[in-house]
Amino acid sequence: MKKVITSTQNSYIKELVQLKEKSRTRKKNQTFLVEGLREIILALKGGYIIENLLIDTSILKEELLVDILTNNDIEIIEISSDVYKKLALRDTTEGVIAVVKFKNLSIKELQLTTKNPLILVAEAPEKPGNIGALLRTADAAGIDAVLIANPKTDMYNPNIIRSSVGCIFTINIATGTTEEIIDFLKQKNINMYGAALTASVEYQTIDYTQPSAIVVGTEDTGLTNEWLKNTTKNIIIPMRGAIDSMNVSVSAAIILFEGVRQRQLIK
Amino acid sequence: MKKVITSTQNSYIKELVQLKEKSRTRKKNQTFLVEGLREIILALKGGYIIENLLIDTSILKEELLVDILTNNDIEIIEISSDVYKKLALRDTTEGVIAVVKFKNLSIKELQLTTKNPLILVAEAPEKPGNIGALLRTADAAGIDAVLIANPKTDMYNPNIIRSSVGCIFTINIATGTTEEIIDFLKQKNINMYGAALTASVEYQTIDYTQPSAIVVGTEDTGLTNEWLKNTTKNIIIPMRGAIDSMNVSVSAAIILFEGVRQRQLIK
Repeated sequence: MKKVITSTQNSYIKELVQLKEKSRTRKKNQTFLVEGLREIILALKGGYIIENLLIDTSILKEELLVDILTNNDIEIIEISSDVYKKLALRDTTEGVIAVVKFKNLSIKELQLTTKNPLILVAEAPEKPGNIGALLRTADAAGIDAVLIANPKTDMYNPNIIRSSVGCIFTINIATGTTEEIIDFLKQKNINMYGAALTASVEYQTIDYTQPSAIVVGTEDTGLTNEWLKNTTKNIIIPMRGAIDSMNVSVSAAIILFEGVRQRQLIK
Repeated sequence: MKKVITSTQNSYIKELVQLKEKSRTRKKNQTFLVEGLREIILALKGGYIIENLLIDTSILKEELLVDILTNNDIEIIEISSDVYKKLALRDTTEGVIAVVKFKNLSIKELQLTTKNPLILVAEAPEKPGNIGALLRTADAAGIDAVLIANPKTDMYNPNIIRSSVGCIFTINIATGTTEEIIDFLKQKNINMYGAALTASVEYQTIDYTQPSAIVVGTEDTGLTNEWLKNTTKNIIIPMRGAIDSMNVSVSAAIILFEGVRQRQLIK
């Protein structure tokens, strides 16, 4: 028989609310919530393990679940609309939330599938929305990995998942301290190009067909000195207007797609 | 003697609140509000006429106004913090708001200063934030004009000004119907490249060193047929990941900076 939960005071539901709201609880439980069918399908595609699915049957058409449930042995819990609203982040939504197990995202576990990778490194991005936007760009460019140095939140923050439109699950992603990531890149002989407003080398003059990591800092303060002094070269996107700053995901997109363009030419 | 307004019930202040909130009032009065020192300086730089400056002297240090007031004959009105809060959009703010006159942004008035322009056209962008982000990108790329086709709001919406960080005032910007803008571009023999998810030509294969307009649609539905059938070519940014969409300002940045890169090579 299917499990049904209708009370927002149910202890499991209370625990899930904590999972949604608190990084600490996510880390302790090693689980997080994923909302929306598309996102859940991408999590499965990315090899994540789903503990159970919570479904508001007043919203969700059962047939939509076929894709998820085929070949997956997942417990289904029917929840009331009140419970659903308590757990959901979005206004417009599909009535389905998954409880999903963490993957170990430590840089020590990172496997690269190519000897000539193109990588994006973001140092301490402030906002979940910025991380999500960077991940979308990385996904579109089809690069080999995204590394987050000194992250200010866990990667399974619901706003990161939402703003990444779920591609956080399919991208090769890892986190670590700045020191660990620099060590990793040096050990693998990957060139590091730091985006810096004071750099003298324009980004488009770099050869990205060699193993390359594009390193971007925060919009406010840019990269720390620890990065700037360890990079192969520091690069700049020349600004030709009245404003001297650009959104970090826009900057990353311009440099990454230049890398992709160059790599296409030599294929 | 300096004019002072301390009551939020003052009729002029009530009118200014309407100016902040309603496109209709802005169009009728042909004035709009600009908040923040940097933005006001950019408005002056862009040749806008300031009717008056409203200053919350509990926030603003008088000496900060020197840049604005030198060589400009502008009426200053001191306002109370209550009045300021009523007019301001931001939480963190500088205590100064300008009442500024509209410019005529009609495509019929647009002057291009080069015979070989690089232009961005955005069709009916939904969100003020998207328009602002597009303007920031266009500013950074230093292109010759931004044309908004079938705009859904007036360009002096406070959220556009804010998200453009004020570069709306220094960019060559014009609005018109899709038909008017297509006519303008055809008459000037400017190639039109429409960004479309179904296009077969990859964006980086185009020669942007000739007169070029990059045309982008909305994130949801892309360009209308009216555009797609009138373009010189439709172009695509190849998507290599799990997600098949990109933020419109990111897409525009990738294509515009490829145009800028090509133009630098032939200089």
